[in-house]
Amino acid sequence: MVTNSHINPRARRKKGTVDVDSLFKDLLAGQVSALSRAITLVESTASGDSAFAKAIIKQALTESGKSFRLGITGVPGVGKSTFIESLGRQLIERGKKVAVLAIDPSSNISRGSILGDKTRMEELVKSDRAFIRPSPAGTTLGGVARKTREAIILCEAAGYDFIIVETVGVGQSETAVHSMTDFFLLLKLAGAGDDLQGIKRGIMEMADAIIINKADGENQTAAKHARREFKNAVHLMPQKDHGWPTQVLTCSGLNGVGITEVIEEIDNYKTHATDNQSFTNKRNAQELYWFHQTIEDAIKTNFYNRPEVIAKLAVLEQEVLSKKKSPFDAAGELLGL
Amino acid sequence: MVTNSHINPRARRKKGTVDVDSLFKDLLAGQVSALSRAITLVESTASGDSAFAKAIIKQALTESGKSFRLGITGVPGVGKSTFIESLGRQLIERGKKVAVLAIDPSSNISRGSILGDKTRMEELVKSDRAFIRPSPAGTTLGGVARKTREAIILCEAAGYDFIIVETVGVGQSETAVHSMTDFFLLLKLAGAGDDLQGIKRGIMEMADAIIINKADGENQTAAKHARREFKNAVHLMPQKDHGWPTQVLTCSGLNGVGITEVIEEIDNYKTHATDNQSFTNKRNAQELYWFHQTIEDAIKTNFYNRPEVIAKLAVLEQEVLSKKKSPFDAAGELLGL
Repeated sequence: MVTNSHINPRARRKKGTVDVDSLFKDLLAGQVSALSRAITLVESTASGDSAFAKAIIKQALTESGKSFRLGITGVPGVGKSTFIESLGRQLIERGKKVAVLAIDPSSNISRGSILGDKTRMEELVKSDRAFIRPSPAGTTLGGVARKTREAIILCEAAGYDFIIVETVGVGQSETAVHSMTDFFLLLKLAGAGDDLQGIKRGIMEMADAIIINKADGENQTAAKHARREFKNAVHLMPQKDHGWPTQVLTCSGLNGVGITEVIEEIDNYKTHATDNQSFTNKRNAQELYWFHQTIEDAIKTNFYNRPEVIAKLAVLEQEVLSKKKSPFDAAGELLGL
Repeated sequence: MVTNSHINPRARRKKGTVDVDSLFKDLLAGQVSALSRAITLVESTASGDSAFAKAIIKQALTESGKSFRLGITGVPGVGKSTFIESLGRQLIERGKKVAVLAIDPSSNISRGSILGDKTRMEELVKSDRAFIRPSPAGTTLGGVARKTREAIILCEAAGYDFIIVETVGVGQSETAVHSMTDFFLLLKLAGAGDDLQGIKRGIMEMADAIIINKADGENQTAAKHARREFKNAVHLMPQKDHGWPTQVLTCSGLNGVGITEVIEEIDNYKTHATDNQSFTNKRNAQELYWFHQTIEDAIKTNFYNRPEVIAKLAVLEQEVLSKKKSPFDAAGELLGL
């Protein structure tokens, strides 16, 4: 049995104070235990921890931004873990240090976070150049997203230069992952299976690359056909601001065929986006997005949590639905409280 | 020269009080002058008018909801006016009363609202079963959307049973139109011209039908080809909640070929959505959407307009971009003011 302290989401630490400077020094040195501990601080809901979390993030920020951040989504069963395992291994072979994080706001309920089953990435788990962290618990997507975003910063400070953020697409989690990564990759399957399960609308148009996975064995012909179909489809979609045409590739997470091409496309994108400055522009826009998103979530929550608003909200909603009041008048009434 | 009081957005009325009951009676009787006047009240920014606007909307609400609301979008040059003219005429021949409204938040600047050029719908303008109203002036999409939504209510009370809301897609106006209509139709052109101009991302996946317009003359082959391509593309997209697969049709706004089929598809949709109750569910969801949207716009505006927030916002944004502060800490600081 292998024990991997760096994949343990609840690394033990002494209660009480945290020596932030020493923790940061260890983090910068790339110590996995320090990284785990820092992420646990960021994830902690204990009130005493938040000041330390803030302090470590503040220091880590100065060292952040140096990685490539890859977002991955796809319906359950599409083979995300196997794909990430293959991709991660090849990246490590090329000298990268790879961190894998997850966003899954549903993990709070099931306690089965998407990376929780560690056996799903067996080889990656064993590598000392890989860091795998399950989805943090949280009741809101905003909370989970914030923790994941801060975990990215910490991983970057610890020297991980390729960060993969995975989501199964609960709620608006694809949008959240899209808003914290440089390149957004949608995994699909050939054939009917995947259509029926269905990803959410708008995701296809968000993707920087669509990868038809499980292009192996008898699936190869269907995968090639699907690739052609998706290529036609993305050709009809409006171009993104950064001017990068969505790529469509096939690959097999299982036997690794096609992974090299995926890495090449990511490299091509990086060159393209660096050359036209959209790489930095997108990152800056993301920073401001999270700044404003946090503000707006908070003022909304404050408003809807006011006792007089709670008391009146359901009544007004009913009056709107029964056409006693227009939505605008009803809103005005609630705002006037 | 024809004078059409019902397309005059600034129908004269006496300053001062409004006899709401009498205006509502005339509105219910289908008097075009009363409808125009009521819409002008709703659009008015004069403080004295708002109480009257509120009162007339309150009465109209009881008679609202009986029309079919069709949203139409497409890039400039796609032939929206000619399409609406053809569609409107055929609807009138089938006994419908048709109202055409527009959302165009940019009209405030150019003063050239999208339906402003009345000659663009020559025949429809002449029909006494059609009501055409240019986009209201407004500085915000929220304001323009509200006015358009209230105009829908008023048109319904006046007996218009088919309401077309057009947009050129400025800002988030497609989303606004999508959120106030029963069926959302995207007009496209065959060939390269339209791809390059580009609609915004996500719009294709919002559409209940994609219509390849200008399928006439030498364009017919290209239009058929485009239809096939779009059919393949929408097949790859996730299904909508209401379970209606996006239809792809060709038509010619110019010679009217294909318009009958568009009307048939809309009828099919109506039957489908009525049968599975998604028609009512969608309308209810839209009412609540506007209720919450209005609230959230207002609390955001209130927050960002506070002098101490204005004073600090740009500084904090800079600190976020220069990595002095995380977006979350910076947001916390602004929220603490």
